[in-house]
Amino acid sequence: MRLQHATWQEVEAYLEREKGIIVPIGSTEQHGPNGLVGTDAICPEAIAWELGERHGVLVAPTQNLGMAQHHLAFPGTISLRPSTLMAVLRDTITSLSGQGFSHILFLNGHGGNIGTMSAAFAEVYAERSMRTGPQPAGELQLTTFNWFLGPRVRELAESLYGDAEGTHATASEVALSWFARPAAVKQVDMSPRIAPRGSAQCDAEEFRRRFPDGRMGSDPSLASVEHGERFLEAGVADLWEVYRAFVTSP
Amino acid sequence: MRLQHATWQEVEAYLEREKGIIVPIGSTEQHGPNGLVGTDAICPEAIAWELGERHGVLVAPTQNLGMAQHHLAFPGTISLRPSTLMAVLRDTITSLSGQGFSHILFLNGHGGNIGTMSAAFAEVYAERSMRTGPQPAGELQLTTFNWFLGPRVRELAESLYGDAEGTHATASEVALSWFARPAAVKQVDMSPRIAPRGSAQCDAEEFRRRFPDGRMGSDPSLASVEHGERFLEAGVADLWEVYRAFVTSP
Amino acid sequence: MRLQHATWQEVEAYLEREKGIIVPIGSTEQHGPNGLVGTDAICPEAIAWELGERHGVLVAPTQNLGMAQHHLAFPGTISLRPSTLMAVLRDTITSLSGQGFSHILFLNGHGGNIGTMSAAFAEVYAERSMRTGPQPAGELQLTTFNWFLGPRVRELAESLYGDAEGTHATASEVALSWFARPAAVKQVDMSPRIAPRGSAQCDAEEFRRRFPDGRMGSDPSLASVEHGERFLEAGVADLWEVYRAFVTSP
Amino acid sequence: MRLQHATWQEVEAYLEREKGIIVPIGSTEQHGPNGLVGTDAICPEAIAWELGERHGVLVAPTQNLGMAQHHLAFPGTISLRPSTLMAVLRDTITSLSGQGFSHILFLNGHGGNIGTMSAAFAEVYAERSMRTGPQPAGELQLTTFNWFLGPRVRELAESLYGDAEGTHATASEVALSWFARPAAVKQVDMSPRIAPRGSAQCDAEEFRRRFPDGRMGSDPSLASVEHGERFLEAGVADLWEVYRAFVTSP
Amino acid sequence: MRLQHATWQEVEAYLEREKGIIVPIGSTEQHGPNGLVGTDAICPEAIAWELGERHGVLVAPTQNLGMAQHHLAFPGTISLRPSTLMAVLRDTITSLSGQGFSHILFLNGHGGNIGTMSAAFAEVYAERSMRTGPQPAGELQLTTFNWFLGPRVRELAESLYGDAEGTHATASEVALSWFARPAAVKQVDMSPRIAPRGSAQCDAEEFRRRFPDGRMGSDPSLASVEHGERFLEAGVADLWEVYRAFVTSP
Amino acid sequence: MRLQHATWQEVEAYLEREKGIIVPIGSTEQHGPNGLVGTDAICPEAIAWELGERHGVLVAPTQNLGMAQHHLAFPGTISLRPSTLMAVLRDTITSLSGQGFSHILFLNGHGGNIGTMSAAFAEVYAERSMRTGPQPAGELQLTTFNWFLGPRVRELAESLYGDAEGTHATASEVALSWFARPAAVKQVDMSPRIAPRGSAQCDAEEFRRRFPDGRMGSDPSLASVEHGERFLEAGVADLWEVYRAFVTSP
Repeated sequence: MRLQHATWQEVEAYLEREKGIIVPIGSTEQHGPNGLVGTDAICPEAIAWELGERHGVLVAPTQNLGMAQHHLAFPGTISLRPSTLMAVLRDTITSLSGQGFSHILFLNGHGGNIGTMSAAFAEVYAERSMRTGPQPAGELQLTTFNWFLGPRVRELAESLYGDAEGTHATASEVALSWFARPAAVKQVDMSPRIAPRGSAQCDAEEFRRRFPDGRMGSDPSLASVEHGERFLEAGVADLWEVYRAFVTSP
Repeated sequence: MRLQHATWQEVEAYLEREKGIIVPIGSTEQHGPNGLVGTDAICPEAIAWELGERHGVLVAPTQNLGMAQHHLAFPGTISLRPSTLMAVLRDTITSLSGQGFSHILFLNGHGGNIGTMSAAFAEVYAERSMRTGPQPAGELQLTTFNWFLGPRVRELAESLYGDAEGTHATASEVALSWFARPAAVKQVDMSPRIAPRGSAQCDAEEFRRRFPDGRMGSDPSLASVEHGERFLEAGVADLWEVYRAFVTSP
Repeated sequence: MRLQHATWQEVEAYLEREKGIIVPIGSTEQHGPNGLVGTDAICPEAIAWELGERHGVLVAPTQNLGMAQHHLAFPGTISLRPSTLMAVLRDTITSLSGQGFSHILFLNGHGGNIGTMSAAFAEVYAERSMRTGPQPAGELQLTTFNWFLGPRVRELAESLYGDAEGTHATASEVALSWFARPAAVKQVDMSPRIAPRGSAQCDAEEFRRRFPDGRMGSDPSLASVEHGERFLEAGVADLWEVYRAFVTSP
Repeated sequence: MRLQHATWQEVEAYLEREKGIIVPIGSTEQHGPNGLVGTDAICPEAIAWELGERHGVLVAPTQNLGMAQHHLAFPGTISLRPSTLMAVLRDTITSLSGQGFSHILFLNGHGGNIGTMSAAFAEVYAERSMRTGPQPAGELQLTTFNWFLGPRVRELAESLYGDAEGTHATASEVALSWFARPAAVKQVDMSPRIAPRGSAQCDAEEFRRRFPDGRMGSDPSLASVEHGERFLEAGVADLWEVYRAFVTSP
Repeated sequence: MRLQHATWQEVEAYLEREKGIIVPIGSTEQHGPNGLVGTDAICPEAIAWELGERHGVLVAPTQNLGMAQHHLAFPGTISLRPSTLMAVLRDTITSLSGQGFSHILFLNGHGGNIGTMSAAFAEVYAERSMRTGPQPAGELQLTTFNWFLGPRVRELAESLYGDAEGTHATASEVALSWFARPAAVKQVDMSPRIAPRGSAQCDAEEFRRRFPDGRMGSDPSLASVEHGERFLEAGVADLWEVYRAFVTSP
Repeated sequence: MRLQHATWQEVEAYLEREKGIIVPIGSTEQHGPNGLVGTDAICPEAIAWELGERHGVLVAPTQNLGMAQHHLAFPGTISLRPSTLMAVLRDTITSLSGQGFSHILFLNGHGGNIGTMSAAFAEVYAERSMRTGPQPAGELQLTTFNWFLGPRVRELAESLYGDAEGTHATASEVALSWFARPAAVKQVDMSPRIAPRGSAQCDAEEFRRRFPDGRMGSDPSLASVEHGERFLEAGVADLWEVYRAFVTSP
C-alpha cells in the first residue's frame, strides 16, 4: 500500500488498525560505470513497495536525496548537507507522528546516510527530552533498516560475489536496481576488474582521486537481472522480519 | 532521460551538449475523497518523464515532499517547513550548478510551494550577490514552471470543468494522476458536489474546519483517465515551449 | 495611530476594542536615477500612516529592510537574505499574536518580498500545525497587501503612464515617495527614456548587466509630487477596503 | 544625508570621498506610562539625522526592532530573538561592506541590544577569520555607540534628574523622544514617583512582576520637550566626536 | 603535550614537525549507581593525556558535552542537541585546519556521539565539496577512534567481565574513570546485579522507564582501580597504533 | 563538589537541598609568549573547583571553548562562532533547568565571551517569553560572573601590577594559571616589556597586526606562582559573595 496512491480517508482507516509506516530513503549519486545514479533510492523503494503490496504495510514516498557530498565530483550526483537531511527527516517524522504513526521505519539504501539518520533521530528525541517538541507528544519509535545489511541479503551477496561485492557500486545493489529497472541495464567493461578499496571519509575531489571510476572495491559487471530478483526476495524477507518485530516492540 | 537511470558517464556526456535539467517537485498531501496523496508529485513527474523521453532532456528525481503545513490535519500529509524546503532546494541547486548545469527548471505541481521556491532561489542568489556562495561561481539561471498554469492546460481545464475545476484537489490534477496511476482510480461521491471556496492561508486545524473533506472549490468526480491523457499532452506541450525558451535565454 | 507614538497602556486599551494591526514593509534598494533608495519603505509607510490617522488603526514601525539581493551591485542597497527576513517576520508575528493581535496585515512596498513573506507566514503556521509553536496558540490571521497592486492604484498608474509605468523604479512609486518626501525630489534625464524590460531572477552582477541604471521598463521622469498625492489617496482607499474585509473575516 | 532619500548615484559619489556610515538601531518596546513604544528607535534616529544633516554623513534607515524579549508581557512590544537580530546585522554589514563602506557605526538606543550587537559583530568577523565570509573581503571596522552613555548626555542627565534618571524609561530618553515627536507628549502621574530598581535579566512575565508599570528606577515625569532639545545637542556633539575618531582610525 | 598548557609559539613549533592532533570528546551523563557523570569525558581524556605525554602528540582540550538526550531524565546529565554538537565540531575543525593541522583524530568516549560525529564530518566536507567552505581549503583528514572499541580494550573487558560488561555504565569505563579519579570511587550494591539490556533509541522518559538505575546490561560493581590501570595501558596502545597509521595516511 | 565526579543519585540528593550550580567557561586561545593557551578556562575552573570543595557547591564541567575568533591567526586557538556558543549555552541551560536547577551561574574567564553569553541568555529567555520554550517552564535565573572583574581580584591586580596588568594575557591570569598548573610555567623575555594597547574588535589577521606577540597592554613577566595563589583566594572570596547573593535572590 503506497501512501502516494492512497486517499486521506484510506490512511485514516489504516491508522485504526496499524501504527507503523515504512519510509524508503536513498541517494542520488554516481554508482560507477554500469550502476545507475538512482541505485540507492531504487533498491529500498523496490523492496518496500513489494513488501507493502504483499503485507498491506503503508509505504511513504521515497526520499530520493541523501548525504552524498563525497560523490559530488562526479556529474549527476545531488547531495543534501547532513543538516538539511536532518531537517527533512525531522519534518517527516513530526508530520507522521502528529497523525498517530508511532512506529516509523526508514528503509535505507545508502551507507552514507547512516550517521546523519542517527543524528536526525536524536535531534527529534532531544526536542522531546528537552520538552521543546510537539505538545502533547505521542509515543514515537524510530528505526533504520539498511536493506544491504540484512542477513539473507548478506549471505546471498557473499555466495554470488565473495570479495567482488565491494562497498560502493556493489554487485548486489546494481543487480537489484537492474531487476527494478530492466530497461536501464548497461554492459560496461570494468578496469580494473575489482575497484580499489579505501575510505570514503573525505571531500569530493579527494574521493575522485581515490576512486577514479566511482566504484569502491567492487566488480559490478558480475551483476545480473536474475540476481536482482533474488536480492529482492531476500530483501523483502529480511525487512518483513525486522518490521514485524519493530511494530510489536513496546 | 531520467537522471536516476543514467550513469555518471552518461551525465558527463549530456553536459557536453546541454546545460539544462528539469526537476519535478510536488507535495505529499491529502487531495480530497478521490484524489491521491501523491497527486502533486505524480503530475509534474509524469509530464517531465514524458518530455524527457521525447526530447532527450535530463530529468532529476522528483522532490516528493513540499510545503503542505495547512494539510497536516488530514492523515497521510507530510510537510516540510519552508526553511527545510529552502535548504533542500539550495543543496540541489548547488550540487547541480557545481557540475555545470547552468539552467535548472523546477516543474512544480503544488501551489503551496511557489512562495517558498521563490524564497529559495533568492537565498541561493543572495549567497552569490554577497559573495559568500560557491567560489568561483558559474552561471546560474533558475526558474519555476507550474504545470497547472500553462496555457494549454488552463484552456483544457476550463473547457472540461469550468467552475468545478477548483483550486485544490482540482479535477484536472486528479485526472492526470489517474492517467499516470490507473490502478489507483477511486470512484467516490462528493458532497457537496462543489467544495467550498476560500483561502488556504491558515494553520492545519483551521484549514480542516474550512474545507472538511479537503477539497477547495472543486468537483473532482468529473475527472477521468481519458481526460488525464489529454492533460499530459497539454502539459508536455506547455513545458516544452517554456523549457526551450529558458535554456536559450542569455 | 502609530505604535511608535503610543504608550503600552494605550495599546492595551486599543486591544480591548480591536485585534488588527498594519505593518508596513519595504526595502532599501536602488530605484534608478531619480528614485530614492527608501522608496519601497516610504510608500507603504505613507499610506499606512495616513490610514492609521484617519481611521484609528494601529500601525507598527516600518520594516525598512527587505529582500533586495538582486540590487546589491548598486551602492546604497541593503538586503536581508530570505531566511533572515523570515526570522524577522516570525518574531514580529509571534510578539504581536502573543499579546492578542489576531489579524496582522503587512502592507508591502516591494515585489521582491512577496515570495519570502509567503514562506514566512507558512513557517509560522507550520510551527502551529506541527504543535511546536507558542503554547497555547491563539487565533492568527495573516495577510499581505501590496499597495502597488490595489485596483485604484493600478487604474491611476495605467491612466497616467500606460506602458511607461514599468516594474521597478516605477513612475507611480517615485511619485508617491516624492509626495511623502518633497525635499528629496530629483530631476534627472533618463536614457533610454523607457528602461529595458526583463526578469529580476538573477544575482546582483547579472541584474546590473541587464538593467544598467537600475530601472526596469519604466520612465519615472513622468512622476510628479501632484501625482503622488493622488496615489496616496488611491492607496489609502484600496487599503481601507482590504483591511476592513480582513479584520472581519472569521 | 539620509540613505533613504538618496539615489544610488548619490551614494556612489559619497563613497568616493567617505567610507563611513551611521546606522541607528533601537527597539519597539514599552517605556512606562508616559514613554513612547518607539523611544529607543526615535532617540538615536533623531541624533543621527541631525548629525547627518549638519556634517554630511550618510545615515542608513533605522533598525526599529531590537532585542526586547523581557518587555513582551507589555502590549505593543515587538522583539527579535538575539539570533534574528544577529542575522539582520550580519546582512546589513555584508551588504554595506560589499559596496565599499569600511567603517560602520551603529548608533544604539537600547541597552538590551548591546550584548547581541557585540555577538553579531563577532559572528561577522568570525566568518572572515575562518575564511568562510565574502571573497575577497575588504577592510571592515565596526563599532557601537550608545547615545545614552555619551559624556555630555550623561552629565546633562545627572544634572537634570540625578537619581531619578533610572535605567529604563529614563527621564532623558523620554525627553529626547518628546522633542523629536512633540505631538506625542503625554502627561501621566507616576506612582510610585521613582520606579523600583532591579535586574532585567529574566523573562517577560518575571519582568512585569518586578516592574509593574514598566519603568526601572526612573521618574520620567521630570522630562520636558525643552530638556529633549538639550539632549539632542549633547547627543550630536558626543556622536560627532566618536564618529570622527572612528572613521580616521586605521 | 596538552594544548591547554602550551604557548602559541610552542604550537607553532609543533606544526613545523607534525600536522596531527588528538581531540578527546565525551559526554556529561548519568552512569548508573557507581559510575561518574563525567565517565565518558574522563576516560578518553586520561588515555589521550597519557599518550600525549609519552609520545609528544598534541592533545586539545576535552569536549566535555556530547549527545546525551536519552539520559536527560537523570539529574546531572547535560546534553547538546546533535545540531549543536555538529556546530561545535565544525568550528573546532575549521579553527585547527586553518592553522595547518591536517589530521584531526577525535578520541571518543561515548557511543551516543558516533552518529553525530559522522554527520559533523560530512557537514565539514560538504562545505568543501560544494566550495562554500574556507577559501583556500587545505588538506583535511578527519577520523574518530572510540577507545572502548579498540582490540586490546575489548579483549581485556571480555576477559575480566564477559557478559557483565554491558553497553552503558560498563564495567570497563567505570574502572578506567576510577583509576583516573581514585578519590571518586563509590561502592554501591547493584540490583539487579546485571542491568536490563535494550535499545537507547528513544527519548529521556522512555529511557528511564527501560533502564531504571541508568545501567544498560552491565554490572559495574566488578570494576576496580587496578583494572582501570590496565584499561589505560590497553587504551594507550590501541590509540597509538591507530594514530600512527592515521597521520601517515595520504 | 564536581559534577563530573558525582553519580546521578548524588546530584538528585543535592537538588533536594540546593538549586544552584556553577559552570566555568573559558576559551582556548593564545595568551602571549608566556601565557598558556588554556588560561581562560584554567582560571575560572580553579576558582570554581576550590569554592565547590570548600562550600559544597556543585560545579559543572568546564566549557573549554569560547568566542576567540580574533585570536585565530595564532596557532593553537580554537574558536566557536557566537551562534555556536549560544547553542551550547542554550542546551546546557535547558538540560539543567529541566532537572530543577533554577539558579545557574556561569563563571567566566574570557572577556570575549561576555556579549555572546548575554545574547545566549536572552535567547533562552526569549523562548520562554514567546512561549516556544520548554513546556511547562520552571523558574530560571541566569547570571555571569567574570572572575577577573571581582573587587578583591581587581584590587590585588592593581596593587601588584598597576598599568602593566593589561587587558589580554594579563599578569593576573597568567599568575593564576601558573598556580593551577605549576609544571607549565614558562620564563620568557617580553619585548616590548608592556605590549601595545588597542581594540580587539576586528578579525584575526588585523588582530595579529595590532598585537604581534598576542599580548594587549600587559607585562605578564611580572606574574608568579605565589601571586597566583593570592588571586585564587581573592577569586574564591569574590565568587562566594556573588554566588550566595545570587542563589538567595527571588
